[in-house]
Amino acid sequence: MVAPSSKVSRRGVISALAATPVLPAVFRGAARAQTGAGDPLPSWNDGPAKDAILEFVHTTTDPSSANFAPPPERIATFDQDGTLWVEHPIYTQVVYCLDRVSIVAKAKPGLADEQPFKTVLSGDRKAIANLSTDDLLKIVVATLTGMDVDQFRDEAKAWIDKARDARWKRLYTELTYLPQIELMTFLRGAGYRTYIVTGGGQDFVRAYADRIYGVPVEQVVGSAGGLSYEYGPDGRPKLIKDPKLLLNDNFAGKPEGIHLMIGRRPRFAFGNSTGDRQMLEYTKAGAGARMAMLALHDDGNREYAYGPAQGLPDTKIGTFTQELYDQAGKDGWIVVSMKKDWKRIFAFD
Amino acid sequence: MVAPSSKVSRRGVISALAATPVLPAVFRGAARAQTGAGDPLPSWNDGPAKDAILEFVHTTTDPSSANFAPPPERIATFDQDGTLWVEHPIYTQVVYCLDRVSIVAKAKPGLADEQPFKTVLSGDRKAIANLSTDDLLKIVVATLTGMDVDQFRDEAKAWIDKARDARWKRLYTELTYLPQIELMTFLRGAGYRTYIVTGGGQDFVRAYADRIYGVPVEQVVGSAGGLSYEYGPDGRPKLIKDPKLLLNDNFAGKPEGIHLMIGRRPRFAFGNSTGDRQMLEYTKAGAGARMAMLALHDDGNREYAYGPAQGLPDTKIGTFTQELYDQAGKDGWIVVSMKKDWKRIFAFD
Repeated sequence: MVAPSSKVSRRGVISALAATPVLPAVFRGAARAQTGAGDPLPSWNDGPAKDAILEFVHTTTDPSSANFAPPPERIATFDQDGTLWVEHPIYTQVVYCLDRVSIVAKAKPGLADEQPFKTVLSGDRKAIANLSTDDLLKIVVATLTGMDVDQFRDEAKAWIDKARDARWKRLYTELTYLPQIELMTFLRGAGYRTYIVTGGGQDFVRAYADRIYGVPVEQVVGSAGGLSYEYGPDGRPKLIKDPKLLLNDNFAGKPEGIHLMIGRRPRFAFGNSTGDRQMLEYTKAGAGARMAMLALHDDGNREYAYGPAQGLPDTKIGTFTQELYDQAGKDGWIVVSMKKDWKRIFAFD
Repeated sequence: MVAPSSKVSRRGVISALAATPVLPAVFRGAARAQTGAGDPLPSWNDGPAKDAILEFVHTTTDPSSANFAPPPERIATFDQDGTLWVEHPIYTQVVYCLDRVSIVAKAKPGLADEQPFKTVLSGDRKAIANLSTDDLLKIVVATLTGMDVDQFRDEAKAWIDKARDARWKRLYTELTYLPQIELMTFLRGAGYRTYIVTGGGQDFVRAYADRIYGVPVEQVVGSAGGLSYEYGPDGRPKLIKDPKLLLNDNFAGKPEGIHLMIGRRPRFAFGNSTGDRQMLEYTKAGAGARMAMLALHDDGNREYAYGPAQGLPDTKIGTFTQELYDQAGKDGWIVVSMKKDWKRIFAFD
């Protein structure tokens, strides 16, 4: 299902994109899948990955099957960044944080002269790209904490409704992978509840998950900070976002978050990086039929190519190591080649 | 809706219980409510509390009402101990911990000679009742942590299936309040999702909440500890319960837990003590119709009488202060008198 990525230049990518027509017929195909008629996964190429999904859903929902899963047990968990939408060249939430710095600086006059905020406000892309982890943490704390949870949600919603990425000039919410939207819809149609289990901020993802993935807020498990309960000047209580990290929902934090917020071991899990390894292990360790999948970003033409598994370029964001690739083969996880297994990647393709 | 408790002796309680016949006709009434026919709350006496519930459900589910709540927003949260089942003379989970000490002591030979375990194993009820908070914490850590979450669930399930309380000689799972089971069933029938939001251990309550309340594990929000991800000798991953407290789901921890695990402000909340105050405040602070209720334990005859609100006996477990009572009156929360508002308290009455 996986082939080494072809190295494609930036110019090549842009040409390829310019040449790609919008195909309304395939939109109709996706709509048909939602009503259960025809192919439920029209953006997936025929092949072992698609076959495995169809077989898994059939065997776990057929009451006569030995692998039948009772409806309450039908839990499907999806990583977000790199699994449901684009995570390169930088996580969307980091863009949000950087964008918020100017707004936060207006509210706190001295901040603009302090580092790392001064660098962010300078707009010097190279200097921003070189910020240390400590610097980024300061930016995260300044932009994601200190406000009421309702205010945070409203601000994040307003931003995500307008913000566009630099490569496609599209809304970030358009950079979701169409095959995955079809897969989530297909699973829900089969009685699975689809959860997002993300290393990203739970409150950030909640601001748009229902609208773009059909995943309601209570089915978003993510990294979360503590909250302070305070009273406003009008006496009304508020939940203020604290800088204290409560759950780092990455690596071993993923099964921990799953147990904390769902309390059931998933039947199905989909990730794309080493941060998803424990979630997939935990899923597969349960009794009965369980399925674990990993998306491999091997399509530099239509999206991005990175690994370093299978000789793909190395990356700091969404690392898919050769070790993870080998573990997938050994443990029966299915690696999905975005290049070979996905007929279309985006709805706008 | 509330009257001061009559002081009833222990002997009086026992006589009253002995004289109470089982009334199968009322069981049929409860069954009818579940199918939507007839009175949905047959164990509630007619009066302002019952009227307020019926009016709230009507106004939030009638599409022509200005107070209509869309189905995804229909979240109802219930405290457990003292709100859904008996919490006196001691929390059921504490009984579980004390019962587990002998099992834990067998597995760890030296433990039986150490305090406070030695005291617990002595069976000296007075000495056990006088254990300090630090002692209890040691017992909690020894009995609720260190094992795999699946093992914990299985052990808790096995215990709750057999353990009986000292007063009624009934299973603890029979000590649920019938009016509350009717209320949860009624709310669910109206499209509300019922959550338990408990200061008790989330994993403990999950072991039986579905069976006795119809609340699935993913709708139990409770105090929760951290988890360690470890591999067993067979290489299979395990989630081990850590002694580190992640969420103390009491007082301000309740709205915090609600935001973390549900992500929506409840429309309806029901508690019985000062530990529920912030949950009720947070619920009522939302826009549109919101309802907050508190059960007052003013029926020493059929259950227990404690406050100290309204001159009821003071208590360390499930404290309902006069200040909370006054806040309820001021903020439009409804205080439910177990004596006056509940026709029956238990299904076995």
